Amino acid sequence: MKNKLLKLTSISLFSIVLSACTVTHKAPQDELRATGDMGVIIERATGQVQIVDHTDKKIISEIDGLGDLSHASIVYSRDQRYAYVFGRDGGLTKIDLLRDRIAKRVMQSGNSIGGAISQDGKLVAVSNYTPGGVKVFNSETLELVATIESSVLNTKPKNKDGSPVRSKVVGLVDAPNNKFVFSLFDSHEIWIADFSGLKDGKEMKLTKFEDIGLFPYDALISGDGRYYIAGLFGEDGMALVDLWHLEKGVTRILKDYGKGEQKLPVYKMPHLEGWAIAGDHAFVPAVGQHKVLVVNTKTWQQVAEIPAHSQPIFVMAQPDNRQVWVNFAYPDNNTIQIFNTETFELVNTLTPGPAVLHMEFTPRGEEVWMSVRDSNEVQIYDTQTQTLLKTLTSKSPSGIFFTNRAHQIGL
Amino acid sequence: MKNKLLKLTSISLFSIVLSACTVTHKAPQDELRATGDMGVIIERATGQVQIVDHTDKKIISEIDGLGDLSHASIVYSRDQRYAYVFGRDGGLTKIDLLRDRIAKRVMQSGNSIGGAISQDGKLVAVSNYTPGGVKVFNSETLELVATIESSVLNTKPKNKDGSPVRSKVVGLVDAPNNKFVFSLFDSHEIWIADFSGLKDGKEMKLTKFEDIGLFPYDALISGDGRYYIAGLFGEDGMALVDLWHLEKGVTRILKDYGKGEQKLPVYKMPHLEGWAIAGDHAFVPAVGQHKVLVVNTKTWQQVAEIPAHSQPIFVMAQPDNRQVWVNFAYPDNNTIQIFNTETFELVNTLTPGPAVLHMEFTPRGEEVWMSVRDSNEVQIYDTQTQTLLKTLTSKSPSGIFFTNRAHQIGL
Repeated sequence: MKNKLLKLTSISLFSIVLSACTVTHKAPQDELRATGDMGVIIERATGQVQIVDHTDKKIISEIDGLGDLSHASIVYSRDQRYAYVFGRDGGLTKIDLLRDRIAKRVMQSGNSIGGAISQDGKLVAVSNYTPGGVKVFNSETLELVATIESSVLNTKPKNKDGSPVRSKVVGLVDAPNNKFVFSLFDSHEIWIADFSGLKDGKEMKLTKFEDIGLFPYDALISGDGRYYIAGLFGEDGMALVDLWHLEKGVTRILKDYGKGEQKLPVYKMPHLEGWAIAGDHAFVPAVGQHKVLVVNTKTWQQVAEIPAHSQPIFVMAQPDNRQVWVNFAYPDNNTIQIFNTETFELVNTLTPGPAVLHMEFTPRGEEVWMSVRDSNEVQIYDTQTQTLLKTLTSKSPSGIFFTNRAHQIGL
Repeated sequence: MKNKLLKLTSISLFSIVLSACTVTHKAPQDELRATGDMGVIIERATGQVQIVDHTDKKIISEIDGLGDLSHASIVYSRDQRYAYVFGRDGGLTKIDLLRDRIAKRVMQSGNSIGGAISQDGKLVAVSNYTPGGVKVFNSETLELVATIESSVLNTKPKNKDGSPVRSKVVGLVDAPNNKFVFSLFDSHEIWIADFSGLKDGKEMKLTKFEDIGLFPYDALISGDGRYYIAGLFGEDGMALVDLWHLEKGVTRILKDYGKGEQKLPVYKMPHLEGWAIAGDHAFVPAVGQHKVLVVNTKTWQQVAEIPAHSQPIFVMAQPDNRQVWVNFAYPDNNTIQIFNTETFELVNTLTPGPAVLHMEFTPRGEEVWMSVRDSNEVQIYDTQTQTLLKTLTSKSPSGIFFTNRAHQIGL
């Protein structure tokens, strides 16, 4: 383990502040709106988002001009007024949920993959493929606060502009005390950027773990912000960092987790956000197999496997941990299965339609929203009875994000 | 265990709808306001509340006309626009956080002790001492939906109006699938009222557990809504119901927990809301002793005890579970202690001032607000450094409640 201070070198502010404020929605704010039951749906094909209300189960407005949303995600300001949308094209867009419009938008890189907001809500960080690294912005103004350049890949020829090629950054999350944790795909590292001193005028502190395993491709952090776990594309097993004990370094867990020696045909690497932790068990999508794995979170040993319809992508626990909801890889992505977390029994199998991409539970878990991309629908189900309550029209919906994420570490 | 259907008998609507809408605050809504970072502080002596903003650390407005707030608590609507204040005098007041005024107020009983909101946000339940029972209201209109009369106490002489005396109701919480769970102090019972069928026109279903232990005085529910635990005033030990397995009935746990044979001088029975559950451990205020008990939540056996400054009242875990913050009974209630949840070591001792009554963490835990009743202050601390960041003026503040409670089961 290395513990270095990163000097924030001169910031090349190639971010372009755009004045895009296009609103296709007509009505301005006639009546007051509270933000606790709102959310945003990504319409990936058209560069648009929908603002929704999950009490009335309705679309409030549609906003366009967000660029390439083919792998977009969202975090929220701590007052739940603003959604920060991380687009694939490097666009960072701040949406005002109360005015139904873009508040601010910057092109912060050439190719980005996700982002996070700090515990105090003052910093928004974005992880980038090109150029590889993390950029950190003031959440109010979207002004650049810090650039963290990732490791240089010496074996690769330089970029056309003469700059060195740097490792892609993935699996960026926030952690308590204004930290961001992320993985470097090409250089096999995990870094922790600590901004807790910023309010007292101190520099950001960077901690680096090297040789954590081959090609970390995604990561998750536990709900209390203690454990950071990265999935590995280049080998089996996963890399775990206990943020309460950095002196222990990186531990390897779940040694058999991955594609294995058989090199199964994997249609899509499962998202790690889709790990469900319920009680002492994590419910984990098996890579390339028709199974959900049950793992003891104390020992990180697999304790059971649940046969499933196809290759699972997301395994999502209801807020009451009573059931997990599972979607699947193409070509079986028209199906959802629901399992009991105590008995591991199949509760129900649903066929919402073509390409069920994402699910989001209402905050206390009475309902779940589901994006069915190829039928241009968002379907809303009662979690207890698994009955369809309502269908909303949405253009190629992918991610669904409700504002209660503002209050959860790591989301 | 008994499982009965309760017939909702004719509803004696003695609730009085008051038109009180007094606002001492001057400014109406000039600018839009998101509700994710708001909260309400009870000013117990003057029947007022303050609406606050925990991003800017400021008082937004003050509202009066709420009656007796000497033991008041609050729940929030699922959109976080409305706070429901349960007053000691039986008043149920709905406050509009966006308009800084009382939206509606009913006198629903003669003497009440607390309340809860259903998972779907449509029902608000209040637990009453006089007349003993639970009243359930439509959260939008505050119209009475159901009256659940508690058990008649045959040994007591009748009330002046000829009605029988009924058991006081305490420890009312919400549970998944639109259930409310509560304890009957005088008749030694735990009841579960299931309103999940209401949306399909079905009657409420009532499940009763008798002989659960002498005089349950308060209760808590685990964060996933699975375990309901009642404290007993009349004997040592606690009563636990596993809501996933009602067939198991009531289990007795922590047999030595209570006043014990020595009948210690107990200045105040600890609030059970003040149990902190962090990982596998619950941090529990010992009754009448200068200790915090550490209990394994799998076995419900005590595994350690932490020496503390005085008799603990609330033991509150930070959202990241890293530390617990403890306040104490009179006459030592000017002090706060902070303990590490992993090593059980004392991290810091603070003396905020006379009568520290309550603490509330910001949603992701970077700060904690503390009511110091007898110096008429609310103090705001950084949780990482335990330094005082700001002091706000408040008249005899007691409970502090932030709107993120809207999204948490049991709060």
